[in-house]
Amino acid sequence: MTLPRDEDGIVSVIARVLPRPPGSVRRGIGDDAAVVRTGGRTLLLTTDIVLEGVHFVRGGLPYRLIGRKALAVNISDIAAMAGRPVFALVSLGLTDADRASVGEIYRGMLPLCREFSVSIVGGNISRSPVLFVDVALVGVPARGKVVCRNGARPGDRIFVTGSLGGSRLRKHARFVPRVREAAELVGSVPVSAMMDISDGLASDLPRLARASGCGFRIDLDCLPVSAAARDSADPVRAALADGEDYELLFTVPARHAGKVPSRLAGVRVTAIGEMTGDGRFQALRKGKRSPLPRAGFDHFAS
Amino acid sequence: MTLPRDEDGIVSVIARVLPRPPGSVRRGIGDDAAVVRTGGRTLLLTTDIVLEGVHFVRGGLPYRLIGRKALAVNISDIAAMAGRPVFALVSLGLTDADRASVGEIYRGMLPLCREFSVSIVGGNISRSPVLFVDVALVGVPARGKVVCRNGARPGDRIFVTGSLGGSRLRKHARFVPRVREAAELVGSVPVSAMMDISDGLASDLPRLARASGCGFRIDLDCLPVSAAARDSADPVRAALADGEDYELLFTVPARHAGKVPSRLAGVRVTAIGEMTGDGRFQALRKGKRSPLPRAGFDHFAS
Repeated sequence: MTLPRDEDGIVSVIARVLPRPPGSVRRGIGDDAAVVRTGGRTLLLTTDIVLEGVHFVRGGLPYRLIGRKALAVNISDIAAMAGRPVFALVSLGLTDADRASVGEIYRGMLPLCREFSVSIVGGNISRSPVLFVDVALVGVPARGKVVCRNGARPGDRIFVTGSLGGSRLRKHARFVPRVREAAELVGSVPVSAMMDISDGLASDLPRLARASGCGFRIDLDCLPVSAAARDSADPVRAALADGEDYELLFTVPARHAGKVPSRLAGVRVTAIGEMTGDGRFQALRKGKRSPLPRAGFDHFAS
Repeated sequence: MTLPRDEDGIVSVIARVLPRPPGSVRRGIGDDAAVVRTGGRTLLLTTDIVLEGVHFVRGGLPYRLIGRKALAVNISDIAAMAGRPVFALVSLGLTDADRASVGEIYRGMLPLCREFSVSIVGGNISRSPVLFVDVALVGVPARGKVVCRNGARPGDRIFVTGSLGGSRLRKHARFVPRVREAAELVGSVPVSAMMDISDGLASDLPRLARASGCGFRIDLDCLPVSAAARDSADPVRAALADGEDYELLFTVPARHAGKVPSRLAGVRVTAIGEMTGDGRFQALRKGKRSPLPRAGFDHFAS
């Protein structure tokens, strides 16, 4: 079997191997979290990992922040479905050098557990040649409804929370998942599609568009460029491609776009463009077509 | 902080770091699976990993069996709580050499998915210096009740399913989790405590006893020694300490012990001893005290 070199491609191989899911699986592989039904209830399920040499370098991040980030990226995935996190499982891979720091890794998670009412209910520990923290997280809908990334329609307006770019320099291990923002949003306005921006807008908006069978047109002059990205050589490119923003990217039907709050839980919301029916991924800068930078962060890209 | 060298010790460090869980967590860290309540329903949550160099050596196990085993050990944990598995998340760590085999890893899981009605609903993939398959599994009670490992009382009789020992030589990657057996058991008789035997009876029965605040006395002449273990130099030691049996270990109050079926879903059930109130871990051989071999399999034991 020839395998694509990129992560999206590997995921599509997996999706072809797996059988068609039963009706209890409302949304399976391919979204920020799975949406399943059991006992008449909707659950959100997700898993994500933070691994030495891929997501951080040894010595580059204190153990507490490694633990914090591993939980935060999973909470962000639940938030992106308009969910709230409830129960976490933590799978640790520890080198001999890490064993004395297992308490620190867990302590790094506790502030997020308190803030978002998450209980760590189990896990496992394995000896490993590299340190990793793999978290699985169970959530429930925050406001009774979930939002997937595949519901956008041509004409829907595109929004992002917060600001984009420069996260790798500063906030990537300390970001606050947008749980409250997403809950407030779906309580305010019909949201057609949503995801979190983990690999950069230039990677993630095409994913939302492909999942929804749409194209898009965004105005790069409208991007909320972060202060950190503004210090870089190419601020717009940084905002598009740096990745690890963990902001919400969402779409709202045009007739409801005026009802989108300008702030959600105190965080700015910015309109950046609209979904289109032509399947093209377009960016405008000062009214002219501008190329989108290539994918942000892909673990398997060469 | 001085950290114990063994896995049980590390788990106790984690348990001390974590806050007291809320009422929705009926059973947290320290059992085969967590027991949680959400939306009026009971869920079982567990996670376990299969990692190159720790649980298998490169080239020693085909990709399909690596995938199969990673799912099977988690299903066994759900079975040990008298649950049935429902939804799985799969977190893969792949070296460049493994990337073409991701389909094989998943195909190895599919027979178990079909047999036990498990849906793989999500996961992630990361580049890694070693191959690993980390599974998180959601289950529900198979018969409306769950069984933890901490409910045994002095006088309860101790039983195991199947046969013990020699698994590492033959069946460890192909074992069938005891889901049906556990469900039939809890439908037949009150079970006070249960767990699966993953690290060997000599390691796991003390865990059940400590969790229950009991001692035990087992009769080594009664052990159901597997055919593979009978070929070894010390068959009883093999049955006690080889590990990876993935059989059920359970206790039943003495007054109900006569109702324990001699077979569960076709698998033999054997009485091996009883729980005691003196806190001692005792083994008898031909009526005389016999030392229990040291712990079976512990990833962190030196």
